[in-house]
Amino acid sequence: MLRSLNPHQLKGSVNLKAQKLAVDVASGRQKGSLLLKHANLINVFSQEISLNHVLLAGPLIAAVGEDYHAAEAEEVIDLEGQYLAPGLIDGHMHLESSLLSPAAYAAAVVPRGVVAVVCDPHEIGNVAGVAGIKWLLAASEGLALDVWVTVSSCVPATALETSGASLGLSEIDELLGLERVLGVAEIMDFPSVIAGDEETLAKVLLAEHYRKTPEGHAPSLTGKALQSYLAAGIISDHEATTLAEGLEKLRAGVFVMIREGSVTRNLAALMPLICPEYAASIGFVTDDRLPHDLMDEGGVDFLVKTAIQAGIDPALAFRCGSLNLAKHFKLIRRGGIAAGYFADMMVLSDLKNFKVESVFKHGQKVAEAGKLIETSFVKPQPDATVVSRSVKLPALSAQDFRFSASDGDHLIQVIIPVTGQVLTERQEFKVRAQGSEIKANASANLAKLVCVERHGKKGHVAKAFVKGFGLKAGALASSVAHDHHNILAIGMNDDDLLLACQELARLDGGWVVVSEGKVLASLPLPIAGLITDRNIAEVRLDVDRLEAAAQSLGTDIDAPFMTLSFLGLEVIPELRLTDLGLVDVFGNRLVDVLIS
Amino acid sequence: MLRSLNPHQLKGSVNLKAQKLAVDVASGRQKGSLLLKHANLINVFSQEISLNHVLLAGPLIAAVGEDYHAAEAEEVIDLEGQYLAPGLIDGHMHLESSLLSPAAYAAAVVPRGVVAVVCDPHEIGNVAGVAGIKWLLAASEGLALDVWVTVSSCVPATALETSGASLGLSEIDELLGLERVLGVAEIMDFPSVIAGDEETLAKVLLAEHYRKTPEGHAPSLTGKALQSYLAAGIISDHEATTLAEGLEKLRAGVFVMIREGSVTRNLAALMPLICPEYAASIGFVTDDRLPHDLMDEGGVDFLVKTAIQAGIDPALAFRCGSLNLAKHFKLIRRGGIAAGYFADMMVLSDLKNFKVESVFKHGQKVAEAGKLIETSFVKPQPDATVVSRSVKLPALSAQDFRFSASDGDHLIQVIIPVTGQVLTERQEFKVRAQGSEIKANASANLAKLVCVERHGKKGHVAKAFVKGFGLKAGALASSVAHDHHNILAIGMNDDDLLLACQELARLDGGWVVVSEGKVLASLPLPIAGLITDRNIAEVRLDVDRLEAAAQSLGTDIDAPFMTLSFLGLEVIPELRLTDLGLVDVFGNRLVDVLIS
Repeated sequence: MLRSLNPHQLKGSVNLKAQKLAVDVASGRQKGSLLLKHANLINVFSQEISLNHVLLAGPLIAAVGEDYHAAEAEEVIDLEGQYLAPGLIDGHMHLESSLLSPAAYAAAVVPRGVVAVVCDPHEIGNVAGVAGIKWLLAASEGLALDVWVTVSSCVPATALETSGASLGLSEIDELLGLERVLGVAEIMDFPSVIAGDEETLAKVLLAEHYRKTPEGHAPSLTGKALQSYLAAGIISDHEATTLAEGLEKLRAGVFVMIREGSVTRNLAALMPLICPEYAASIGFVTDDRLPHDLMDEGGVDFLVKTAIQAGIDPALAFRCGSLNLAKHFKLIRRGGIAAGYFADMMVLSDLKNFKVESVFKHGQKVAEAGKLIETSFVKPQPDATVVSRSVKLPALSAQDFRFSASDGDHLIQVIIPVTGQVLTERQEFKVRAQGSEIKANASANLAKLVCVERHGKKGHVAKAFVKGFGLKAGALASSVAHDHHNILAIGMNDDDLLLACQELARLDGGWVVVSEGKVLASLPLPIAGLITDRNIAEVRLDVDRLEAAAQSLGTDIDAPFMTLSFLGLEVIPELRLTDLGLVDVFGNRLVDVLIS
Repeated sequence: MLRSLNPHQLKGSVNLKAQKLAVDVASGRQKGSLLLKHANLINVFSQEISLNHVLLAGPLIAAVGEDYHAAEAEEVIDLEGQYLAPGLIDGHMHLESSLLSPAAYAAAVVPRGVVAVVCDPHEIGNVAGVAGIKWLLAASEGLALDVWVTVSSCVPATALETSGASLGLSEIDELLGLERVLGVAEIMDFPSVIAGDEETLAKVLLAEHYRKTPEGHAPSLTGKALQSYLAAGIISDHEATTLAEGLEKLRAGVFVMIREGSVTRNLAALMPLICPEYAASIGFVTDDRLPHDLMDEGGVDFLVKTAIQAGIDPALAFRCGSLNLAKHFKLIRRGGIAAGYFADMMVLSDLKNFKVESVFKHGQKVAEAGKLIETSFVKPQPDATVVSRSVKLPALSAQDFRFSASDGDHLIQVIIPVTGQVLTERQEFKVRAQGSEIKANASANLAKLVCVERHGKKGHVAKAFVKGFGLKAGALASSVAHDHHNILAIGMNDDDLLLACQELARLDGGWVVVSEGKVLASLPLPIAGLITDRNIAEVRLDVDRLEAAAQSLGTDIDAPFMTLSFLGLEVIPELRLTDLGLVDVFGNRLVDVLIS
């Protein structure tokens, strides 16, 4: 009779053998694999911290209790009062923001106690669609980090761009059927939700059909607009920035994810929500974290640490980074330390300084003293064809970047980057065309921005001007360009713009700084033009070199490549450039650079 | 593109039309169906009670907020500060214990604010198997009460009985695939779990496969035994009777269901668990409630009321009877009052006395002033063939009940019912056989108990003796006989025992009292021999008449039919009678009545 069960033994859950072993070990019929003695156990079910023993059976926790003895396990570790906490779950993040492959990301955060992330593969979805997301699933299969996926819900962002792929209802349906897919990712297009757009609303119902979660993204939505958005059935949000906004959402039934990204940092403002009364409704997320923040601060562990340092009950802080997210996403046997749960745990010698000594994943020690250690968890090597050689440029010459205009004075509209924000502003600016063209002009702090379609489709080239980037010479280019990820290049002359684009084509994507016909620095991002398989320390060094090179060309903007990568995002105000041209975001339409 | 979504529109969730209507109403593009103004809203997300307005759109709540006005709805009810609370969910119960059909049960509890039950159709499963459970699903489809099902996990209870049906892994698999099935019901066979029995363990994995819940039943399990049981992956329990037991289970990650049944009453002992720190881990359940308790006290509403009267924060008490259970069972859009949720709510004029004025189900008023009202919710009329004429007795004569023994003194083992409990005790007792038989004997308070197989299978007849039932004449018989539900009859002479059995066959099951060849009272239970379609008031009157008739025959036991119905339950100590014979529960084997 048991043979009929085989098809039901899931990858995501345990098999009968592991389950039976746990029961046999707990019952004393078999020896456990490991006994962790004298752990100061952080119990996220009852918010208590007290000394206890934890007996493991392979991947599972067999038992927790004071009555288990050394003779009952093959191996014994006496923690001598060190803390034992559940491994952390990052409830919403974009792997691509780290510029790292799943394996490289795992190496960066697992030693910090992060055992799982729920990622929205939004960027790779825009470049490579369903195949790209399936590559990401394959590339993260069997890591020491559980990589769960929510299906990106807004690919492409609008019709005013050429993306590499689109995810319609049937693609979302296909992906929702996969075991490691937990829901529909942040439904960012809140205007369409509130407007009652049927295709957008249907994404919520699709998630419900699979008993999975429809995730939200409701920046600054309050009052009636928030109610309209929630009326669709969306159940979470990670965009609250003030306590009042967080509390309003919580009262409205929303699972409030508190975000501490690289740019958007909301933990301090929302900290008072982390109290016993609201405890079950709060989760921690990072959304977007850049390599240097991952290295200097950490991933979702940074939120737990910061909350503890601010005086939050440590067990409650851990709960927001573990159990609550597991429950929200309906994850089985995850998020706490209890019999039957996966043995995903971390040992800390110091809570206040969040000093992680070692990390266990599915019962195996996978990290110690800040480093991954050799385990049976191996770096997956999926076929990367679908995400390789993704930078397919049209044949280009410097002539393609020439901005023609009749000689004389003109009024143009230019993009103003806002320092430290994703927003841009629109400004009208007087220029003079000479030789039938308008050129970049260092003395006016005016750079040329070009967007080149790179998915091998129409080969569009669009041009505009940016004021305030600070460049005096050369060019920067990026194949990371939210959300369509065409090539964005900013520069002071067409030859360097061309070289920058060509160099990116040669590297299969990445970031590059060129000047006077020479490549000054580069970071290859050959996977979909978005990420690299190299480790975080190498990537960070490259980023540092790139930023230094960009500064040497005169720019004084913080994180110039991040700023550049957002100049094409046509869903955030106010003026953007896609491969189809200049976009007036408020008007949701293409506009001319030349006003007169 | 939307056409491809149709197959995904679930019965259990909303369709696109209802969803869009809610968004349109919240956004002001359409009028709502109803505005409930000045509600003292019981917010189970934030545990707050404050004045607010709630705008409905058909079955859904479109919006909650102070800014909605009468002009925005077709109908307006000013609640003038009356309380508005989420409708209640009973997290674990057996419909059959009420002796009522789903429709009759709904009529009894919906006016009290109960909008959903999670039932374990254990009894009908034993009688009619998968077909019986499917009948129950059909018979509860579309009621004003949501009837969710967990698949009974221990049918039959043991091999020492003849049940009408069995539910193996493939039957459980089949039922788990159904939309209204939420999990595997209380895994009562904890010895098999702890022993690592693979077939029992596999039931947990099957539930996980469907992303549904494996429910527990761990009476008095603590320490290592509890850890062994939980190591299997079981996530809930409703058997804790002391605060220490409840707290130990909660700390072990268990969702602790507090039960207040007709016989087993644990709320008072577990009340201290209902505090903000543990709030998310507690749910309310009734398990088994008899008609008179349902009428006098209520269903799961009785727990909320009792908790409030004991001084528990009312919002927290409501949360244990609504949101927490919805989350535990992964129910979508249920358990609270918020935009996007189903409009399942109750209006109360008085919290302390729990005075329910009206109840809304999916936006419709379904009850008012304690009575169901006419709605579009209609009593379902499924084909009842599979649960009809279920009492199939062998050809019987009084001779079949004769207990033969050689003339002279004998030592027999007899069953002792324990007043007010499900337990029985075993006692050895001296008797004298005359005319080659041992008879019931009123002066020794010794009655004869017979069990007749009634599923039309082997036609077994087994006989034993019960001491202390108090009968002086006549006989009682019941087709409700846990868990196999064969006929159990207890009486003082074989002719009355025969008549009682024959009358049950004529009624298609039920309860009956006979004496001196006459039927004194009866309650027909023609659906599977377990329940009736009649209303609760009629059933209660019949039960009162039956108990009076039983008392007239000399018995002084409380609830004699309930006591009788448990005399055949061979999984609870100590001595029982099934159709296969006398069962020594501790020995898990058949034994002889005659010791010498």
